[in-house]
Amino acid sequence: MSTISVFALGGLHEIGKNMYAIEYDHDIFIIDCGNKFPDESLLGIDLIIPDVTYLEENKDKIRALIITHGHEDHIGGIPFFLKKINVPVYATRFTLGLIELKLKEHKILRETEIHEINSDTNLNFNDIKVNFFKVNHSIPDCLGLVFRTPQGNIVHTGDFKFDLTPANNEHSEIHKMAEIGKEGVLLLLSESTNAERPGLTPSEQIVEEHVEEAFLKASRKVFVSTFASNINRIQQVVNASIKTDRKLALLGRSMVNVVDVAMKRGYIDIPDDMLIDKDQINDFAPENVAILCTGSQGEPLAALSRLSTGNFRGAEVLAGDTVILAAGPIPGNEKNVSKIVDNLFSLGANVIYGSGSASGMHVSGHGYQEDLKLMLTLMQPKYFIPIHGELRMLYQHRLLAESVGVEHENTFILNNGDVVDIENSDARQTRKVPAGNTYVDGIGDGDVGDIVLRDRKQLSEDGMLVIVLTMNKTDKKLASNPDTISRGFVYMRESEELLDDINRLITKTVKDLQKANKSQWNDIKKSIKKSVGQFIFKETKKKPMILPIIIEV
Amino acid sequence: MSTISVFALGGLHEIGKNMYAIEYDHDIFIIDCGNKFPDESLLGIDLIIPDVTYLEENKDKIRALIITHGHEDHIGGIPFFLKKINVPVYATRFTLGLIELKLKEHKILRETEIHEINSDTNLNFNDIKVNFFKVNHSIPDCLGLVFRTPQGNIVHTGDFKFDLTPANNEHSEIHKMAEIGKEGVLLLLSESTNAERPGLTPSEQIVEEHVEEAFLKASRKVFVSTFASNINRIQQVVNASIKTDRKLALLGRSMVNVVDVAMKRGYIDIPDDMLIDKDQINDFAPENVAILCTGSQGEPLAALSRLSTGNFRGAEVLAGDTVILAAGPIPGNEKNVSKIVDNLFSLGANVIYGSGSASGMHVSGHGYQEDLKLMLTLMQPKYFIPIHGELRMLYQHRLLAESVGVEHENTFILNNGDVVDIENSDARQTRKVPAGNTYVDGIGDGDVGDIVLRDRKQLSEDGMLVIVLTMNKTDKKLASNPDTISRGFVYMRESEELLDDINRLITKTVKDLQKANKSQWNDIKKSIKKSVGQFIFKETKKKPMILPIIIEV
Repeated sequence: MSTISVFALGGLHEIGKNMYAIEYDHDIFIIDCGNKFPDESLLGIDLIIPDVTYLEENKDKIRALIITHGHEDHIGGIPFFLKKINVPVYATRFTLGLIELKLKEHKILRETEIHEINSDTNLNFNDIKVNFFKVNHSIPDCLGLVFRTPQGNIVHTGDFKFDLTPANNEHSEIHKMAEIGKEGVLLLLSESTNAERPGLTPSEQIVEEHVEEAFLKASRKVFVSTFASNINRIQQVVNASIKTDRKLALLGRSMVNVVDVAMKRGYIDIPDDMLIDKDQINDFAPENVAILCTGSQGEPLAALSRLSTGNFRGAEVLAGDTVILAAGPIPGNEKNVSKIVDNLFSLGANVIYGSGSASGMHVSGHGYQEDLKLMLTLMQPKYFIPIHGELRMLYQHRLLAESVGVEHENTFILNNGDVVDIENSDARQTRKVPAGNTYVDGIGDGDVGDIVLRDRKQLSEDGMLVIVLTMNKTDKKLASNPDTISRGFVYMRESEELLDDINRLITKTVKDLQKANKSQWNDIKKSIKKSVGQFIFKETKKKPMILPIIIEV
Repeated sequence: MSTISVFALGGLHEIGKNMYAIEYDHDIFIIDCGNKFPDESLLGIDLIIPDVTYLEENKDKIRALIITHGHEDHIGGIPFFLKKINVPVYATRFTLGLIELKLKEHKILRETEIHEINSDTNLNFNDIKVNFFKVNHSIPDCLGLVFRTPQGNIVHTGDFKFDLTPANNEHSEIHKMAEIGKEGVLLLLSESTNAERPGLTPSEQIVEEHVEEAFLKASRKVFVSTFASNINRIQQVVNASIKTDRKLALLGRSMVNVVDVAMKRGYIDIPDDMLIDKDQINDFAPENVAILCTGSQGEPLAALSRLSTGNFRGAEVLAGDTVILAAGPIPGNEKNVSKIVDNLFSLGANVIYGSGSASGMHVSGHGYQEDLKLMLTLMQPKYFIPIHGELRMLYQHRLLAESVGVEHENTFILNNGDVVDIENSDARQTRKVPAGNTYVDGIGDGDVGDIVLRDRKQLSEDGMLVIVLTMNKTDKKLASNPDTISRGFVYMRESEELLDDINRLITKTVKDLQKANKSQWNDIKKSIKKSVGQFIFKETKKKPMILPIIIEV
């Protein structure tokens, strides 16, 4: 029997850019291809996607890219990946709808080989069979995967929680999971997002009740902001609008696009005459209008943010309107969301918000500790790799696994790129494959690296000084006074004295070098950087980037 | 009777930079003078302090700067303020200890007039008497204030919670508060930090129990990270160390300084031979050592962060050690703290952490909704100004005030600078005084304004291109090829083609302008900015700063 290799190219020690691979003999299977949004230290970067060097080097072996569900951290890297390596994509009907939007945007829909699957699909690739089971999450049509290999079953849960009263009545296939567990699971890969949170995830039903209550109480317009992909929650808003006789307007490009996909593919049920255009909002009495909008994470350019500052053309939050934030802020977004709540209050709106499930308007799509333990109990794996989480979550998940009987040493806490090799049903952590972050900035991916980011950081903190020296080629003397221009350092008009001092210092530095017979352009540049840098730090405690430029005349 | 004017110069619509003023006739009283730490949008800024233009214009009227307690958001602006306006400072013994550290650092201790007060002090200034009452918070020696004016009592709560079992046995003076309320309160200013949180703040006692339990369980070194100013919590760590026979080392400059102040002034009780130097840690068995360190908010240069990456000289977190984060992350700091927890786990430490009071190792020093309602009930104010909070907290605090009987229209939700004037015990919002942020960057305050920040933002996102054109004075033609240098844009060595294209475009732009007879240096600069900017955006979707420089030869 050949070795099975399992590794992640993204998703470990991070929330985002999920990408896992299973390699057996001459076949590689990829699970998910997500992106991640940069934190503020990655100045100017738009997106982060996985480094796929290993897959590029082994592209002939790749049999399939299988997608568990349609969230950005699982599909956002697909177009960038397919432009490098064109492989067949497998996903459910709704997930494919979202992927196809991306492929269209990147103009590669036509050349992509797409396979629609569902939870009953059997895939056969040489020695490996792939089967699926439905899981609950916060987007429709989510799958867990089981790879039936010659050495045993390998299960990947996808993102999941156990919701016994799911909003769309689409239940987890818990019996199927039990059967797989009974067959025996050699290795389980299970998501860890909420491994720090005790208890069981609350059901989506709770939100349904709270949304309805808020709609019944509201005497004027109701705005609801949520993730466009959370179709079940959007269905709840539709239902509450029907009950309170409201028309529904959709604001924000992704809300319009995703609801369109959901309607066309039959994942949401909206009465024919219910949807109105934003320009029609004022044609109806305020108590007969509801509005669904993007921007629940405080994104500055999304609909909710612009509504909160009165800058959304066509729709307006007025005193007495109700605004519901039906999505918890993802860690890191709290400040932006709070700013919007503040602004909505100052418009006179009745704002219903709250972190986590405090307002009753949001429940997590990721299983809490008891959900994770239930999965582990159903699967009873011999080996366990906690995936999809920051390091502390992976550690907590290992503790949970131990509490339900997985041996401590059979859990692998891995880094992206760490390979677990399984031989004769015996797993060991062995080699490493290349893994890391590829930055997307503007159109390109990969053209911004650490040097550029380091420069941006210095520029962002104390700005820069460009010093232009016009030097005579022949006698290597200054042909005119140095020109010093600063940006982002201090306001130049108010700092003339400082700049005069700097120019005097430069002139002196150049003369001293000449006396010492050190008139190589590079010597001059280095000396000026050093002397001006020290002078500025002494005077202002700032460290701007200093960029001497020599023009020969 | 003269008009009483009340306003904030900081602390409204924000957490931080608290500064409030009460003006009566020819007297101005200032309450607190705090700073605020910048968010990531204020690139490179070190601190924010209040704009005190109004006070500078009226400095002869200022009678006193009275400080409620020693937290940075109440004292951090003092040295900058005193350098502008030298006024007498009134504060309690412990608070003065912390203020004096700052004045020493800024070399203005000698020329500052300092008055030590306690909760029984009577201050008399012309028509105004000022009295005090003790409140509980998360630092020793905190006061609330009552200004006895000819029109009635004005109460400022300071920061407070009601802790019926406080760790240091220093109880709130609840009877004094009740008496003031019975006398009658014309206007209450009360803090709003936790106005969104239902219930009553948990007692500091809970932490004591959890700290002791963790110390008893620990089999090797115990690290505890908390705010240096939280002397009560530090006392708990001392007590737990005594019980478990551990020596105690202090890591981090502010921990050493503040504990020193607390010891000298009698606010903490540490046995004589208990404190050890960090260099002595390895002289004792691991089970006989505890370590108190700074950095609970994830500050990258503080002790805990450096310990978590193995970069603290003299102390090391080893496998089996226990690390307790005995302070909740302030909103905005979650990511940095999480990163540290991850790193500590990977060192093999047993990490006890958790947001809010989840771990039992932290309770808030700010009263929850029931605490706030108790204060409102005790004071029974006619007028109410919620202070110290983001806008949504001020709104929630107004709701709480209404629920215990304050008339809706008698609560003023103000901005910094908004003045409430009281005449014949009748309050109205009237004029505005200047208020805003003054940025401290490096040594100076006020030399970095919005233009500099806007430049830093552009530089941070897409970097810059400096284009140097050497031009003949006489015929206004290019004397040589343009020189283009970029920083923070793309990695130059890998983008030669792009830079060649840009240089060709510049040459063409200059020639075209000459043909059109538009050879003013300003015309040339503008045209180059525009044409190069458009070209780069088309090619890369980036918008670097473009800085054309013309050198005349």
